[in-house]
Amino acid sequence: MKIDSVDLFYLRMPVVEDIGDGSQDSLLCRVTANGHVGWGEAVCSPTAGIAAWITPMSHSGCHPVIDSVLGQELNDPSDIKRIYNLVRKNSFYGLLQSDLLISGIEIAMWDCLGRSLEVPIWQLLGYKKSEPKLPYASVLFGDTAAETKNKAVEMKKAGFRAIKFGWGPFGTTTLGDDEAHIFAAREGIGQDAMLMIDAGTVFKDSVTDAAKRLPALKAANVLWYEEPFDGYAISNYGELSTHKPKVSLAGGEGAHNPYQAKQLIDYGHVDFIQIDAGYIGGIGNAYEVAQYARSKNVKYVNHTFTSQSALSSSLQAYAGLADSNISEYPMEPKMLCQDLTVDRIEVDKDGMICAPDKPGMGVEINVAGIKKYLVDVEIKVAGKTLFATPTL
Amino acid sequence: MKIDSVDLFYLRMPVVEDIGDGSQDSLLCRVTANGHVGWGEAVCSPTAGIAAWITPMSHSGCHPVIDSVLGQELNDPSDIKRIYNLVRKNSFYGLLQSDLLISGIEIAMWDCLGRSLEVPIWQLLGYKKSEPKLPYASVLFGDTAAETKNKAVEMKKAGFRAIKFGWGPFGTTTLGDDEAHIFAAREGIGQDAMLMIDAGTVFKDSVTDAAKRLPALKAANVLWYEEPFDGYAISNYGELSTHKPKVSLAGGEGAHNPYQAKQLIDYGHVDFIQIDAGYIGGIGNAYEVAQYARSKNVKYVNHTFTSQSALSSSLQAYAGLADSNISEYPMEPKMLCQDLTVDRIEVDKDGMICAPDKPGMGVEINVAGIKKYLVDVEIKVAGKTLFATPTL
Repeated sequence: MKIDSVDLFYLRMPVVEDIGDGSQDSLLCRVTANGHVGWGEAVCSPTAGIAAWITPMSHSGCHPVIDSVLGQELNDPSDIKRIYNLVRKNSFYGLLQSDLLISGIEIAMWDCLGRSLEVPIWQLLGYKKSEPKLPYASVLFGDTAAETKNKAVEMKKAGFRAIKFGWGPFGTTTLGDDEAHIFAAREGIGQDAMLMIDAGTVFKDSVTDAAKRLPALKAANVLWYEEPFDGYAISNYGELSTHKPKVSLAGGEGAHNPYQAKQLIDYGHVDFIQIDAGYIGGIGNAYEVAQYARSKNVKYVNHTFTSQSALSSSLQAYAGLADSNISEYPMEPKMLCQDLTVDRIEVDKDGMICAPDKPGMGVEINVAGIKKYLVDVEIKVAGKTLFATPTL
Repeated sequence: MKIDSVDLFYLRMPVVEDIGDGSQDSLLCRVTANGHVGWGEAVCSPTAGIAAWITPMSHSGCHPVIDSVLGQELNDPSDIKRIYNLVRKNSFYGLLQSDLLISGIEIAMWDCLGRSLEVPIWQLLGYKKSEPKLPYASVLFGDTAAETKNKAVEMKKAGFRAIKFGWGPFGTTTLGDDEAHIFAAREGIGQDAMLMIDAGTVFKDSVTDAAKRLPALKAANVLWYEEPFDGYAISNYGELSTHKPKVSLAGGEGAHNPYQAKQLIDYGHVDFIQIDAGYIGGIGNAYEVAQYARSKNVKYVNHTFTSQSALSSSLQAYAGLADSNISEYPMEPKMLCQDLTVDRIEVDKDGMICAPDKPGMGVEINVAGIKKYLVDVEIKVAGKTLFATPTL
């Protein structure tokens, strides 16, 4: 079948707050091929992503993404890889945003292909089984340590055996404050639960500042210390990995291609590699990193803070890897992301989740329910309308 | 003084060809502060860059670039660094295009500051002298080896003692064809001139394919072998650097932040690091890489394929480094780039060029001459016009 259309939709909450919560808007991509429809979300500033779709060509290495996608054959997984490679080849210089936009479109291609063939994406990737993963509740730190503790208590009551706190005030005030948050989190969830701490890149490239938190992280028996640095600061990860006390490092959500994720493993010596299929170029790239991580004895974890469709697409890449058995589970998404899908990936009686055993990504977009979030975008160049929001 | 306005202009040739020639359009940035005006060019898909300027906020890590620039104080070089850091902090997740857009704006801030203080940018960076550089003519391979040879002969006649061929058919047909091009280039310019070969990322991440060209490159006494791989494929550079025969490697034009350039030095073991100030985040970042390269005994070279203003802005970062004495000199820019400035950086009687000893970037934008290239861009979101092309 041939890709007949790709439609991009900017969805957003009525009010977007200036906080570290990526669930406040979405760039939703719809791919249609021979009557089959697939959906995917790009982790991408929506208007900038739309511009990457239709921006006029600058030269042979700076084509709009549309040039490499529309009209292409889509019959099996190798076509998706081929189309992704075309985008990289045709848009690699001067159009960095294309890496994020294609992530959403690539996912939609997998969803479309899986639905047309009536198999889950993880089966198309070659996995025999969708292995259960322990979902961890991913939440923001409270403004105070007391608030953080309350949140931890709530999550424990909700049944979570693993919880990650991140962003908020961490790293922005004093070492003492950070330590108080870490210990409050541990106190709130109890000694047996898994606790992870996400520094949200706050220390940029200061190994000294990041290392000061290691004793408290160790004392609180934290499973991993996530993104102390800028996602590109790979050598700083490598340096911190040699510090004592030893705390496992995690990172990778900022990787917008597989090279960066592999470098974070090889040179940054992370113990957990966290990949967002909506950022790294799609499910194919995420799968490539998952396989590479396995070959290096690094645990693969999805990065997902938003919707259930984003969760499913990020689960596909490592669905069959039994050893990589932890999954980030978005706990506080805004209503937009709650309304985005008809169904959810439910936590089973054993407290585990799985990539769905249904065609494509296995969750249904709630088209009627999200119309109220749709934002019109119009881009005109030289008097010609290159993009106008299509009908949802 | 305070940044009163930032204006973005999309300039382009009447016809944009699907070839590896980045001089066919430009995203020109104008910064105005207290009556002083500075200009800079971003190596950036113009419409996508404009979108990065005004795209509505998605969350605290995904602000439009305008939020971090407009109204900021601009009194000395530390302000430029501060503003750049603000952009990174506020736009780092989901808005990759911001790295390229801020490059042009950052250059314009330096130009504006230099003009207001009546000193060249290289002096603001702390250099005492603008050292002479040997300009190399940077041209595309011919379609055939005979054409490549003719081009080389012409460049030699024009007085160039160094020449680089790149892109075109290199790497796209056979090893024999590539060897023919390499030897034709050497024959055309004679035995004494410097010859460089730019593979234009054509081998992606295949060390085997890239290595097959090493014997011919060695036999033709090539000074460097540039960008055999995708700019992100750092470990592949590292692997190729160990192959025999030893040919010096060059790369870095794809670095959109200093981390990547440093990794190409540390892990990729390049011998020449090539930085475009209009890509890496501006002159401040380029300077940081130049200093790092010096500390690692790596030669710093500008990457410039377009205008004389781009050349000047890329020269500033290493103007005072006497050891890094080679400069890429655009030889075949389209008329847009020729018309972009009133003056040029002339090759002196010794065949050398210097960063100008004049305020700011030291070349003047030809405002009247480029109006004919201006392309209107309009971006509307939710019915509100967020961007309309300003008056040039």
